[in-house]
Amino acid sequence: MTETAPRPVVTAFEWVPEFARGLVRDLRVRWALEEIGAPYDTELLNAREPRPEEYLARQPFDQVPAFHDGDLDIWETGAILLYLGEKDARLLPAEGQDRWNAIAWLFSALNSVEPVSQRIVSYDVFYKDQPWAPGAREAIEGLCRQKLKRVNDALEGKDWLAGQFSVADIAMVTVLNILRHTDLVAGHPNIAAYTARGEARPAYKRALEAQYADFTPEPA
Amino acid sequence: MTETAPRPVVTAFEWVPEFARGLVRDLRVRWALEEIGAPYDTELLNAREPRPEEYLARQPFDQVPAFHDGDLDIWETGAILLYLGEKDARLLPAEGQDRWNAIAWLFSALNSVEPVSQRIVSYDVFYKDQPWAPGAREAIEGLCRQKLKRVNDALEGKDWLAGQFSVADIAMVTVLNILRHTDLVAGHPNIAAYTARGEARPAYKRALEAQYADFTPEPA
Repeated sequence: MTETAPRPVVTAFEWVPEFARGLVRDLRVRWALEEIGAPYDTELLNAREPRPEEYLARQPFDQVPAFHDGDLDIWETGAILLYLGEKDARLLPAEGQDRWNAIAWLFSALNSVEPVSQRIVSYDVFYKDQPWAPGAREAIEGLCRQKLKRVNDALEGKDWLAGQFSVADIAMVTVLNILRHTDLVAGHPNIAAYTARGEARPAYKRALEAQYADFTPEPA
Repeated sequence: MTETAPRPVVTAFEWVPEFARGLVRDLRVRWALEEIGAPYDTELLNAREPRPEEYLARQPFDQVPAFHDGDLDIWETGAILLYLGEKDARLLPAEGQDRWNAIAWLFSALNSVEPVSQRIVSYDVFYKDQPWAPGAREAIEGLCRQKLKRVNDALEGKDWLAGQFSVADIAMVTVLNILRHTDLVAGHPNIAAYTARGEARPAYKRALEAQYADFTPEPA
């Protein structure tokens, strides 16, 4: 008789609109867990109404994912990715400059690239019918292109941001996917090749399939 | 004869416009270093023209701060704060749930609160004369208020986000300062008390003075 360790738990949504599928952030955690072959359980939440008040203790912004492993509760995908990286060097070099390069790129994905990408989505999707949206979008597009150029330049001659594949790439590839409805990434060949490389990883494919498999069908 | 260890180096700007003073992100690193009484040197860069090409190797987005300590180069304030926290438990609990709470709040400050705060500044300062700015501002203000409400609720009964003072508070207080030109923070009493508590710390005051002291006077 073998004892089975409790599996980590990731919260996810049981349904999101079509445009959000493949973008919900539990994908990042699923991908990291798939990379290291760690089985996990999902706890599915209703995206169409506020979560129970108690959920705020696990995720103070009422979003997904929240993560539970052993005795620990962690939220924010950056923190969860760092946690998984510290447990497994396949996700994060254990020390030295390599470790800090990966951590710096992890923060860059979430603090330097995601905010501007999110603004593009905001204008293109959430506020697309507002009269002010085209002006706001045009103003921010230049900044978005500039950030993408920096990432593109940093990828010159490299397969992954920090040398070896790491949690930084899980964050950056999924952040860049936010722009999939635009032609912004296509204009940067190193990034286009990089996201394709990330999405070709079997662990990414398994994670994406698992996220889709958890969505209930659209009501008829 | 005592040997002196080389001091860490933080890059900063030698001049920024009035509205940006006290907000440039090297403040976060200076504050953390002041909290642990670690002397540091600054390397001042020109904000009014692009930095030399070589600087991109230290900060791929051509921003400040970049940080150097011993053999390591680190960029992104989140990564630098994490690095300093791992060296000194006064900035980050060494293990367990307390450590992950602080790290999750560090990411929250930078990924959940800063982006929406930065949008408010963008509309109020950088694009304030654009005809689309008021509409864009109004649309995002509700989201900003919602994020602030979540932080306010999380601070109920607590002096600091993760129990003890930590790098999460350095990030969050400086992020909330981005909104200092608005009345958004004033509407949330826990946050207003929290930022006042942060800014009352002697280490914060020393860091702020040091940032201002490094600015050259305005040309006459």
